[in-house]
Amino acid sequence: MKIESLNNNKVKEWVKLQDKKYRDINNKFLVEGDHLLKEALKTGRVVEIISDDKAWETSGIPFYEVSTQIMKKISKQVSGTKVIGVVQKNGDGKIEGNVCLLDNIQDPGNLGTIIRSAVAFNIKTIILSNDTVDLYNEKVIRASEGMIFGLNFIRGDLALIIDSLKKDNYKIYGTDVNKGINLKDITFHDKIALIIGNEGNGVREELKRKCDSLINIPIAKSCESLNASIAASIIFYEINR
Amino acid sequence: MKIESLNNNKVKEWVKLQDKKYRDINNKFLVEGDHLLKEALKTGRVVEIISDDKAWETSGIPFYEVSTQIMKKISKQVSGTKVIGVVQKNGDGKIEGNVCLLDNIQDPGNLGTIIRSAVAFNIKTIILSNDTVDLYNEKVIRASEGMIFGLNFIRGDLALIIDSLKKDNYKIYGTDVNKGINLKDITFHDKIALIIGNEGNGVREELKRKCDSLINIPIAKSCESLNASIAASIIFYEINR
Repeated sequence: MKIESLNNNKVKEWVKLQDKKYRDINNKFLVEGDHLLKEALKTGRVVEIISDDKAWETSGIPFYEVSTQIMKKISKQVSGTKVIGVVQKNGDGKIEGNVCLLDNIQDPGNLGTIIRSAVAFNIKTIILSNDTVDLYNEKVIRASEGMIFGLNFIRGDLALIIDSLKKDNYKIYGTDVNKGINLKDITFHDKIALIIGNEGNGVREELKRKCDSLINIPIAKSCESLNASIAASIIFYEINR
Repeated sequence: MKIESLNNNKVKEWVKLQDKKYRDINNKFLVEGDHLLKEALKTGRVVEIISDDKAWETSGIPFYEVSTQIMKKISKQVSGTKVIGVVQKNGDGKIEGNVCLLDNIQDPGNLGTIIRSAVAFNIKTIILSNDTVDLYNEKVIRASEGMIFGLNFIRGDLALIIDSLKKDNYKIYGTDVNKGINLKDITFHDKIALIIGNEGNGVREELKRKCDSLINIPIAKSCESLNASIAASIIFYEINR
């Protein structure tokens, strides 16, 4: 039966998932649109599908037909969206392959873009500091182009995690615009853990001290720094080069 | 005298500059915040400074003290801003140094980030197709981190401009995820014009046919493509490597 009322309890529950607090409590998040839903479906973690178009009904996953007005209410996009999936969060991921640690990344677009580039360049695990933006923010998921479903994610205290990575024979790389080694001169170890720092302040000093190598991407003097997702992606590229 | 009324004619004029149409008519645009204003001031093209704090008054440039409410009205940022500059647009730039051509880039964040990386990696001229997002969009200026003031910009018909670049001994490079040459195997010519394509569709076929080389950045099969500003920046990096 089509849901028409904005006061419907399911509708209220879906709208709440726009907020991090409720995503944390319910362990679920929303994905919007055809492309992202398809990527999410591959994981088997889509628990509900919501649309104003019955064509989106698929066997096996509870489907809710709703009014276009309700779609607009649940969507974070100005022009609304055709289909929304409710997705179960992944449990804590495992650490495998090359790792990228994010030290207080604040911009959701940057986080999403780093995720997309990580998949492109064979990084398998992303570790988010406790103060990094929420992984399940709608803008993060959108900027990742669905690549959020292709990686392991862990959130925690980076200093502690770096210590355990070291015990597991990872070499720790950080970035430093002043005293790092020119990226093209770095010989990467076979187990890489790369720390990308906050947009304004870079990698925390406390974490820099734990690095085996500090990397510098040489840039023109007239430019203060690269965007964080650009710096990360260029280093990912060089690791694969 | 402090402006308090939202109906003041100057206020109305500034608010209109949020729209491309009025930026085009008046040949002016707005920059928000301390950092961007400082970069703009270096160009000598700031014609008015607006703030709710008299401390921003500097000699030589007309200063308008306004209420905080008016600042919020003129600003595109949710939390408002402390200072706004009205800047005269640059006339048509000249073509010099390495060139990046943008074929229908739609996302303002991507355009701003490409500009920032271009300055970092010594690209001197950016040529925007007529259908590329407006250079003076507030989000473009913000994502550029003020680097918009450090480059030559031209807007026009890319096919015609490419023909004239060729006559001027530029080699034309495009990107192609399917049939391009591996980026690391490219030997770049000393006069480079690189075309970056639209976020969804890449470089138009018509323009690809004009390229001397098509470049491919190898990525994992599980990832469809890189973000346009990431692809551009990795190629800029490789040109300088």
